[in-house]
Amino acid sequence: MQTILKSATAEVRIDTDGPVIMIGEKINPTGRKKLAQALKDRDFDYVRKLALQQVEAGAHVLDINVGVPGMDEAILLPEVVKLVASHVEVPLCLDSGNPKALEAGLAVAPGKPLVNSVNGEETSLAAVLPIVKDRGAAVVGLTMDDNGIPNDPEKRLAIAGKILERAAKIGIPPEDVVIDTLVLTVGADQNAGAVTLKTIELVRREFGVNINLGASNVSFGLPDRHTINQAFLALAFAKGASCVITDAVKLAGTILACDMLLARDPYGKRYILHTRKHPKE
Amino acid sequence: MQTILKSATAEVRIDTDGPVIMIGEKINPTGRKKLAQALKDRDFDYVRKLALQQVEAGAHVLDINVGVPGMDEAILLPEVVKLVASHVEVPLCLDSGNPKALEAGLAVAPGKPLVNSVNGEETSLAAVLPIVKDRGAAVVGLTMDDNGIPNDPEKRLAIAGKILERAAKIGIPPEDVVIDTLVLTVGADQNAGAVTLKTIELVRREFGVNINLGASNVSFGLPDRHTINQAFLALAFAKGASCVITDAVKLAGTILACDMLLARDPYGKRYILHTRKHPKE
Repeated sequence: MQTILKSATAEVRIDTDGPVIMIGEKINPTGRKKLAQALKDRDFDYVRKLALQQVEAGAHVLDINVGVPGMDEAILLPEVVKLVASHVEVPLCLDSGNPKALEAGLAVAPGKPLVNSVNGEETSLAAVLPIVKDRGAAVVGLTMDDNGIPNDPEKRLAIAGKILERAAKIGIPPEDVVIDTLVLTVGADQNAGAVTLKTIELVRREFGVNINLGASNVSFGLPDRHTINQAFLALAFAKGASCVITDAVKLAGTILACDMLLARDPYGKRYILHTRKHPKE
Repeated sequence: MQTILKSATAEVRIDTDGPVIMIGEKINPTGRKKLAQALKDRDFDYVRKLALQQVEAGAHVLDINVGVPGMDEAILLPEVVKLVASHVEVPLCLDSGNPKALEAGLAVAPGKPLVNSVNGEETSLAAVLPIVKDRGAAVVGLTMDDNGIPNDPEKRLAIAGKILERAAKIGIPPEDVVIDTLVLTVGADQNAGAVTLKTIELVRREFGVNINLGASNVSFGLPDRHTINQAFLALAFAKGASCVITDAVKLAGTILACDMLLARDPYGKRYILHTRKHPKE
């Protein structure tokens, strides 16, 4: 199954059987003071720099999150979307839980963006899905609902089913819904990784849709986070994830190695080119 | 299913659903001139040092291969087995295709060692399986036969079935056969990784036995081999491999991260302890 995203000039296909699509995650002020300050100051040079770094490192799509306390997302998101779209050619992923901000951002985003995210809560389904449908966008569906994030793969699967059903009911086809099975930190819950990996397997088997992964939470608070993040990505791709929101600067090498090992990179061309552009010291 | 290995004092269980068992691979002179020379000179200090390094890094079992051209393995293997067994507490894996050497090595190895390996060739089955049975050892079965290594997961599965059947016929139970699905280099054949991963899945589903992996061939000739090896291990564990012949010094961190993410390391204790003992600079 293919989820097609577009910028003004380029098209990206997230394919359940294709190479992994990397969504660059760095334009997100959560826990990044420097970016939060830059957004407050409208210092867009720094934002532009982060965007270009991710694309240079191999990101196929850029995530844009401007959630800074005290700032009006509905004003800031469209500004940053316009700015980033004028500097990169890749499709954008508008990352907000605020329907007004999403509407304003989608109005100025070129092509066919991805909306990050809707979830299984009634208020989220009711507010976000119609906006996605009206704009002809695609959407990330998080497997959580009014009761939180279940610690049980079958329950996360059921929420994925609910999101797909509600999307279908208003005319959003399954290929325009990318399910994010969510991952908590394994430092706080020793089953956190295994629950997510099992959910990926179940969602892939049951619905055959594209599956997204946020790849850095899992290692929070643990030593040598990079090794854990690398391992988790590979485990998730083996189970069927096809898309990942991550720092391409740090993890593109691992992601491209997985594509090569899963026979999704003929002659290892993409992997080899990446190591030439970004040699290890 | 559990494959039990023993030294004089310790027991290791390779469990299809348990943490990954690491077989330290460094005592193997293939491509290692310094070790080849040390074996020729009977400079066993160097051998001892390699053995201790692997155990210190986390190896649960030690592979011993003394195949140096011009040296009589049937004399050298038992000497090295005795030496290593007197310095480490872990079970041993006797790595030779030479039945006389295996017999001589098994005669002096303590506990219940692993024999590496038998394969689907008639001469190998006929020569190696009786030795394994007589000694009450366990054995690694390689998925290759008189026609070489098939490029087709179904054919490798069939060879695994043949080895298990022939073993059973002389009284070696399936839990004492660890299937090695073999991996060629992805630099020479772009499907090499995918074929092995698919074979792991099939063998696990069909026979439920333990599966071993040799983890460094896959990256031969490619840039940044470490990233590829890390990715390949994680992909293979996700598919069901439970045992790996590898350099524990380089890859124990990744292997323990996978165990933690697959919920096989309660509270991440083993992973955290490893990072304390071997901090990254």
